[in-house]
Amino acid sequence: MDEPGQRELAGLVRLRLDLGYDGSAFHGWATQPGLRTVQQVVEEALSLILALPQPSALTVAGRTDAGVHARGQVAHVDVPADAWACVADVAVRRLSRLLRDDVRIWSIVLAPVGFDARFSALWRRYSYRVCDDPARADPLRRRDTLWYQRPLEVDLMNQAARSCLGDHDFAAFCRRREGASTIRELLRLDWARPEPGLAVATVIADAFCHNMVRALVGALLSVGDGSKPVSWLPEILAARRRDPAVQVAPAHPLCLEEVGYPAAAQLAARAAQTRRVRTDSSGEHVRALGCGG
Amino acid sequence: MDEPGQRELAGLVRLRLDLGYDGSAFHGWATQPGLRTVQQVVEEALSLILALPQPSALTVAGRTDAGVHARGQVAHVDVPADAWACVADVAVRRLSRLLRDDVRIWSIVLAPVGFDARFSALWRRYSYRVCDDPARADPLRRRDTLWYQRPLEVDLMNQAARSCLGDHDFAAFCRRREGASTIRELLRLDWARPEPGLAVATVIADAFCHNMVRALVGALLSVGDGSKPVSWLPEILAARRRDPAVQVAPAHPLCLEEVGYPAAAQLAARAAQTRRVRTDSSGEHVRALGCGG
Repeated sequence: MDEPGQRELAGLVRLRLDLGYDGSAFHGWATQPGLRTVQQVVEEALSLILALPQPSALTVAGRTDAGVHARGQVAHVDVPADAWACVADVAVRRLSRLLRDDVRIWSIVLAPVGFDARFSALWRRYSYRVCDDPARADPLRRRDTLWYQRPLEVDLMNQAARSCLGDHDFAAFCRRREGASTIRELLRLDWARPEPGLAVATVIADAFCHNMVRALVGALLSVGDGSKPVSWLPEILAARRRDPAVQVAPAHPLCLEEVGYPAAAQLAARAAQTRRVRTDSSGEHVRALGCGG
Repeated sequence: MDEPGQRELAGLVRLRLDLGYDGSAFHGWATQPGLRTVQQVVEEALSLILALPQPSALTVAGRTDAGVHARGQVAHVDVPADAWACVADVAVRRLSRLLRDDVRIWSIVLAPVGFDARFSALWRRYSYRVCDDPARADPLRRRDTLWYQRPLEVDLMNQAARSCLGDHDFAAFCRRREGASTIRELLRLDWARPEPGLAVATVIADAFCHNMVRALVGALLSVGDGSKPVSWLPEILAARRRDPAVQVAPAHPLCLEEVGYPAAAQLAARAAQTRRVRTDSSGEHVRALGCGG
């Protein structure tokens, strides 16, 4: 139900949820029959505390894959206003008791006018953690860190990463989907060494195609360990088709850290703009602004 | 076998191991029949790569309890010199393949003359992680972080902690053991906020009695959340007997971060000094320098 007016007539309110999860024991975000997913467990817990006859569907900013974590996930849900009024003050506490400790709802509030967790988002920020020194592999962080066997040259990875910034067709780094655009705006992609033996990538884009972060990271690891030259990245990007030499890096070191939204006054305009692109007759940019995987 | 001369005659060499582990799935460090412990899995892996007829016993700096982690554990083991010579170059790699990924041996080297992982140690440093804001509870760190329901005043905890520094009888914070001293030298005990919602204690002592860190942390949490005054710490310390009002904090947020040793030339002297105290007729200080739990 996209229009605020329609929601009001139906007696619904839109809630914004901020949440985090350890993706290890989830089959990703999106509901799949018979599998434990974040969407399913959160929708079920919400329907319990709101006493809904059936779960209301969550809309999420970043549809994370199996094994991917989140520390800054955002979702929205439309629920009956009277049901919400009964539990607004205790909702977070009740959810924390209902949910296992691998997922935490940090806040649930009435969403500002025009807010859409998916369509209002301006950008998504992910991190990717790699330990490249076996003598510093920390068992306590093994669930969100890749243990890489060869030392990485962060400077080389950053040189290569720069060639991918901006608007590009990222077909070389995406799993193709029929009729879906692979054009994205990559706003940031760089590596830092917060401590010895640890390299962490920060990746920001308006949205991501499927596997895009993990394919970019996989290609950069090949540059960082010296098996490919810096020039390899711009070459495969320019080729605009999936390159079998690009290894998709594992899922478990990937974490959705933050979703950016415009100021309250711009929320509705941003959502409308994203939706216009989505329904544009050209079809070209269909997934570019909507998909956050 | 404590004397280097005896070891040499027996054809043995002493190895120093540096290791880390996620204590979640271990019943602590020390071997217990039928239970998975760090000592047991590491001794078994060592005996496999060295082709020993039976495992050689490890001596450890800090005998961590069930659920406690380590990022800076140190141990030593005496093994046949010829067996070591065969695998010295590949030992770390082979162990990393044999061991599950919740324990990592970072290095194994010939120990310097006079080295004893337990008796040469000058101090042990532990950390204790507490999240005191439910809206920031990170599921990815739940295995090494206490989720505390009330906000903590770090300044108050630090005031109270200062009264415990130095040489004291820590009987109020220890599980009593027959004939064992509870005198320790507390070198450091303070709290920091590395990020909002997170309070981390750093605790250093020459050695710790059983449960000492967790009892100190438990008492400080009662001060930090306002349920006890700052003056409570010096009061219970002075009482010198176990106070039932002191809650022993949970094990899983505790991590052995580092063990301090003197310079190579002082290793043997320090070990001899610790051993003299241990065999002193007074019996008073028996566990004070030897026990690192």
